[in-house]
Amino acid sequence: MTRTTSIHAIARAGLMAAALLFTGAAQAADAPSSPVGADGSVTLPLAPGSLVLPFSSYASPEARDWFKRYADVHAPPITDVPASRTFYDRMNTDRANRLRALYPVTVTDQTMGGVPTQVVAPAKGPAVADRVLINLHGGAFLWGAGAGGLVEAVPVAALSRIKVVTVDYRQGPEHRFPAASEDVAAVYKDLLKTYKPQNIGIYGCSAGGILTAEAVAWFQTHGLPRPGAIGIFCAGVLDGGGDSQAWSALYGGQLPGPGLRLIDLPYFQGANAQDPLVLPGVAPEVLAKFPPTLLITGTRDFMMSDTLRSQDLLERAGARTELHVWDGMVHSFFSDPESPEARAAYDVMARFFTRELDRPNDR
Amino acid sequence: MTRTTSIHAIARAGLMAAALLFTGAAQAADAPSSPVGADGSVTLPLAPGSLVLPFSSYASPEARDWFKRYADVHAPPITDVPASRTFYDRMNTDRANRLRALYPVTVTDQTMGGVPTQVVAPAKGPAVADRVLINLHGGAFLWGAGAGGLVEAVPVAALSRIKVVTVDYRQGPEHRFPAASEDVAAVYKDLLKTYKPQNIGIYGCSAGGILTAEAVAWFQTHGLPRPGAIGIFCAGVLDGGGDSQAWSALYGGQLPGPGLRLIDLPYFQGANAQDPLVLPGVAPEVLAKFPPTLLITGTRDFMMSDTLRSQDLLERAGARTELHVWDGMVHSFFSDPESPEARAAYDVMARFFTRELDRPNDR
Repeated sequence: MTRTTSIHAIARAGLMAAALLFTGAAQAADAPSSPVGADGSVTLPLAPGSLVLPFSSYASPEARDWFKRYADVHAPPITDVPASRTFYDRMNTDRANRLRALYPVTVTDQTMGGVPTQVVAPAKGPAVADRVLINLHGGAFLWGAGAGGLVEAVPVAALSRIKVVTVDYRQGPEHRFPAASEDVAAVYKDLLKTYKPQNIGIYGCSAGGILTAEAVAWFQTHGLPRPGAIGIFCAGVLDGGGDSQAWSALYGGQLPGPGLRLIDLPYFQGANAQDPLVLPGVAPEVLAKFPPTLLITGTRDFMMSDTLRSQDLLERAGARTELHVWDGMVHSFFSDPESPEARAAYDVMARFFTRELDRPNDR
Repeated sequence: MTRTTSIHAIARAGLMAAALLFTGAAQAADAPSSPVGADGSVTLPLAPGSLVLPFSSYASPEARDWFKRYADVHAPPITDVPASRTFYDRMNTDRANRLRALYPVTVTDQTMGGVPTQVVAPAKGPAVADRVLINLHGGAFLWGAGAGGLVEAVPVAALSRIKVVTVDYRQGPEHRFPAASEDVAAVYKDLLKTYKPQNIGIYGCSAGGILTAEAVAWFQTHGLPRPGAIGIFCAGVLDGGGDSQAWSALYGGQLPGPGLRLIDLPYFQGANAQDPLVLPGVAPEVLAKFPPTLLITGTRDFMMSDTLRSQDLLERAGARTELHVWDGMVHSFFSDPESPEARAAYDVMARFFTRELDRPNDR
């Protein structure tokens, strides 16, 4: 046996390769000795139709069904904002109804600091008296208000028993940065009349995750105290990049393309990507003052790499993070409540805020 | 504009797609409307040479150079155990020398409980008096003794100032499960004469990570107390699977193949994959009694999915975990000390054991 095996193949196969070879199976490797180019990219000489990416063996049957079902759901062109808002509102209303059947809550419309909100409280028994959470919905800073806010607020309010205020912040294309940050600050200031800052948490998924980070940076420069804990889900403190951009394309049946930038969204027209109020990840001194941060993503989420890189930057800056990643899960996988992975994510969120609010920074 | 966009494409592109379309660029998507099969797998109709996976935009230039360099390093056939041991010993000796130049330590051979070990202590100033770490080297339960143990012990001893005992445990093909667990238990028992269990940490990468988990399960059934904290790196409490098996194949220039099993390694010949002493992940009641567990992996590590799924199982069982994942990093990426990612990983390890040893379980 004279064929040599590249270290990358060893690294890939590791102890599994040892097993393979010891049990006598032959490795069908016709790859060139180095598929890695000068820029570090890997080029694969595949035959048409030969690349099959299996569903994760570690994800649940419910998640697999979800993955299959959503491949057949078609959205209107997203340049059509009214149609997109209608489409996602219908999808999110259905999700919110299914969530409310599983997690009973009361929902009350309320204006705080001049901003429309919905207050979501556990239906059975009293809410925790001295704590509150602010939820910032996702939707590309274009859609997701209303039912989209309920989707992310209902399970967390029910499981943590902490009241959640979900904010209908201003979005594009009608509004521009920093309108949403101003709206979050207005709601936060209003809540500070009643709650200690260390008893207030803020969280959101996708655009809502980025806005959570932007709001914390905004507070720092606008004389507002640090909240007790935050959650950045399906997002990070950066502009999009890393390995997950390529994989998520493949899982969507497409070739990896150039990554696109948050800054190109209508809401950010005219904003500066080097401004830490837009992308806090550019400023370690801003990240250093972040509260304990829960980070949640899945291996098929195009933003996974942003979440991972954000953990690294936050930790290097001296902030404390808690990262959870679910195998086989896509962007915003916990918006539908039926998979065990979604339930595990809700439990993690509820446990994190229960543990991290109202405690000294003991890092 | 009548072309519809599947939800998977939306999920992939998310807010980035919105930016793309708003800025007028056309999406070159000729993919069929649903590339997802009945089993949840995704089939890609790619032209030969068309699949190029870029290096992670979030990884460092040092990591990129490492990735390129190792693609050209060739190992002997791994069925040739003597040649493999010589090859990896040379590689690990070189790594250990580079590490020791950066992280000055003293190394003392010592037999503990009849098992050969090396005791690695910080060279400058005294070590922390009342704490100790046990390191279990990687190497597919076939190689990695000696210099391989130093690679994982040197930076942690220097940065944490906690003495590290790296164990030359019995391996295959000469020995079989549970020889390595017995050796770890013998060293642990010897250290318990001097140290409180909550002041002892155990960690390892790859085979050493799996062995760490096996040892904790072994202690449970052999009347030994729970250690204070453990680190499972580049590994998990399971048998190999998930999304990372496919990606790591692609990054190695190969097509995804069937995942292989830990249980097929020579060391595990005759062992039972349903035995929690072999794979603790099969038994939630065993995981429930795990100490705080640090989990470390990278997005190109074939074992990443095992690490992620292990976090989920540990947390569901009630154990406390801390997960760190570095974008663009392969299996055992921190074995070479020159990348900022390796340094960040060492810092995380040192900080974790400094924080988690000698404290009550406050979950």
